[in-house]
Amino acid sequence: MSGPSLPIDPVALARDLLRCPSVTPADGGAQSLLADVLEGMGFRTVHLPFGPVEAPTPNLYARLGEGHPLLCFAGHTDVVPPGDGWAHDPFAAEIQDDRLYGRGIADMKGGVACFVAAVARRLEQGPLNGSIALLITGDEEGPAHFGTKPVIEWLAERNELPDFCLLGEPTNPQALGDVIKIGRRGSMNAVVTVAGTQGHVAYPHLADNPVHRLLAAFSELTAPELDQGSEWFEPSSLQVTSIDVGNMATNVIPGEAVGRLNIRFNDLHTGTGLTQWIENVVQRHAPQADVAVSVSGEAFLTQPGPTVACLSEAVRTVTGRVPKLDTGGGTSDARFISRYCDVAEFGLVGATMHKRDEHVELQTLEDLTRIYLAFMEGYGV
Amino acid sequence: MSGPSLPIDPVALARDLLRCPSVTPADGGAQSLLADVLEGMGFRTVHLPFGPVEAPTPNLYARLGEGHPLLCFAGHTDVVPPGDGWAHDPFAAEIQDDRLYGRGIADMKGGVACFVAAVARRLEQGPLNGSIALLITGDEEGPAHFGTKPVIEWLAERNELPDFCLLGEPTNPQALGDVIKIGRRGSMNAVVTVAGTQGHVAYPHLADNPVHRLLAAFSELTAPELDQGSEWFEPSSLQVTSIDVGNMATNVIPGEAVGRLNIRFNDLHTGTGLTQWIENVVQRHAPQADVAVSVSGEAFLTQPGPTVACLSEAVRTVTGRVPKLDTGGGTSDARFISRYCDVAEFGLVGATMHKRDEHVELQTLEDLTRIYLAFMEGYGV
Ligand SMILES: [Zn+2]
Ligand SMILES: [Zn+2]
Repeated sequence: MSGPSLPIDPVALARDLLRCPSVTPADGGAQSLLADVLEGMGFRTVHLPFGPVEAPTPNLYARLGEGHPLLCFAGHTDVVPPGDGWAHDPFAAEIQDDRLYGRGIADMKGGVACFVAAVARRLEQGPLNGSIALLITGDEEGPAHFGTKPVIEWLAERNELPDFCLLGEPTNPQALGDVIKIGRRGSMNAVVTVAGTQGHVAYPHLADNPVHRLLAAFSELTAPELDQGSEWFEPSSLQVTSIDVGNMATNVIPGEAVGRLNIRFNDLHTGTGLTQWIENVVQRHAPQADVAVSVSGEAFLTQPGPTVACLSEAVRTVTGRVPKLDTGGGTSDARFISRYCDVAEFGLVGATMHKRDEHVELQTLEDLTRIYLAFMEGYGV
Repeated sequence: MSGPSLPIDPVALARDLLRCPSVTPADGGAQSLLADVLEGMGFRTVHLPFGPVEAPTPNLYARLGEGHPLLCFAGHTDVVPPGDGWAHDPFAAEIQDDRLYGRGIADMKGGVACFVAAVARRLEQGPLNGSIALLITGDEEGPAHFGTKPVIEWLAERNELPDFCLLGEPTNPQALGDVIKIGRRGSMNAVVTVAGTQGHVAYPHLADNPVHRLLAAFSELTAPELDQGSEWFEPSSLQVTSIDVGNMATNVIPGEAVGRLNIRFNDLHTGTGLTQWIENVVQRHAPQADVAVSVSGEAFLTQPGPTVACLSEAVRTVTGRVPKLDTGGGTSDARFISRYCDVAEFGLVGATMHKRDEHVELQTLEDLTRIYLAFMEGYGV
């Protein structure tokens, strides 16, 4: 291990990262820049490109120290496309009125910069107890097939799994200190294709209307409450996202109907159980239907314990606010990590993420750095 | 009135009509040809073009005699497009193996020719008791706004309504003598547009899913039997013909959903009553929805009495078969006529109508001519 590193300014590092145009799947130099900084601090770094040889997903793993506990910070350097209508160049990292603007500052280059800055401050206090790692992917905003998932599997194979993972997604809706995420709902999609027998509306007995079969199946699927929520989760929710037939002939019974639905489900369900339920209901109303289900992630929960309490306390110390422990919202790469180790999520304020003129207050970058540092101290790394 | 006319061969007249390329809205000279033949027989003819001045619908009305009863034959000279794949030129009126081929021979230039030939034979027997008319439109296969409907209204205004109308549509599914139609079901279409509030599937409480509202409404509309049929009618039937959302984003609750349905209804319902039912059901599940209903025709029935019995007897005399009295199938221009006078339908065999290589047996043209003649004799015109 090298000696104490130079202090690192989270704002300066965040600006350097913002200037890398890393719209998924592009990297824009972000991970090399990050690797250089980490190596300067004494980290051992390894680039772990997974996926198709002609266009692999860039991933970076870095570790400082050998022993336990191993605290791992997880995040991503890719960003969603900027879109139109910005008042600030999305890749120029402009500062105006104490705000830093740029695509990905909240989601989540700012979080990455704060963690690196916090590690540098921790190293100024003396050597680590245990070790610190970073697991950074370049495909969180894309399909995510070749990002965090194979990297955590690679760590598992090498017996190098973290003792705890902190994911730096922007968990706070409005202000730093709002929310720590300790789990996420599962998500699955189903496409139901019902083939019938086309015919003339005047002779329905010669036809088999696939829309009626789909209606019956989807009515049964949407009728019940899936549950009323659980200790840490909101109720599960099934949403029909589309039904499409495309028949504009008013006198024709169509030959096919396609329905699509998404379920966000809590820890009372599994993707397998819900898949069977959907297949059973559809089978009863439309025996010939094709049901294609994909489970993007199972529900998971990190039961609140000493480590989450320590993270809460770090947030309270810096912000004066007690964060809500929450499992709502969309999915994140925590769904891959949770299969192997406990994970919680805390990062910047997400109010402008994925929108134009994405920005954060400079003060929140400093405050988040302090929170991460306080967590390292409390966790004892 | 002129004297007895020359005998007319139904096959020859049918071939002349087939060679007029009268794909709706074109006339192809069909009505002028028919008017010439009828004038040669002593009919007074009037062309009654209704609709837009730049492209009026061709209609022909012809009458022979002054007194009552006034028997009116109704029909159309327009045909549906031939489509591809014919083995016979659709407008060449080819005869092969005792069959006459051509677009519209069954539906319904053959029926028109048979009726004209039957009148000629009737006139050979002596002067009419009463009078005979023909109401021929050139827009039965199209929108039909400016065809039979304004012509029958024109007759009503002039106090010239027929005592009975015989519509020459191809009512026989397989063989001459199968079916006399004494009514038709009503038909109506509804387009239901439900506006909701678009959102992310992870936050359903911030959205209002229009697909769920449409599903609930259409499930309620499709659940009940509308009726179990009535004395002369099959059960009414509601068919959802399309549902369209067009949202391929699996994580998005869409902002709008459109459903379309058609109802074929019997004499236990009215278009107005069904419209109110649909509006009430939709209103309950989707108060903001737009419901656009169009009633293409009400159900109607000519109660079987002496005239229908006389037509049945004419069919039995010629074919040896007792035709079924029926109200099934699609709509026809009889829906316009029935508002003003009793109407029944009997014509050729419709097995190949609207298909490629549409044809009839030469013998059925002769037999239908005899049936029409026997009906005139029995009816006493
Ligand atoms: Zn993110
Ligand atoms: Zn027709």
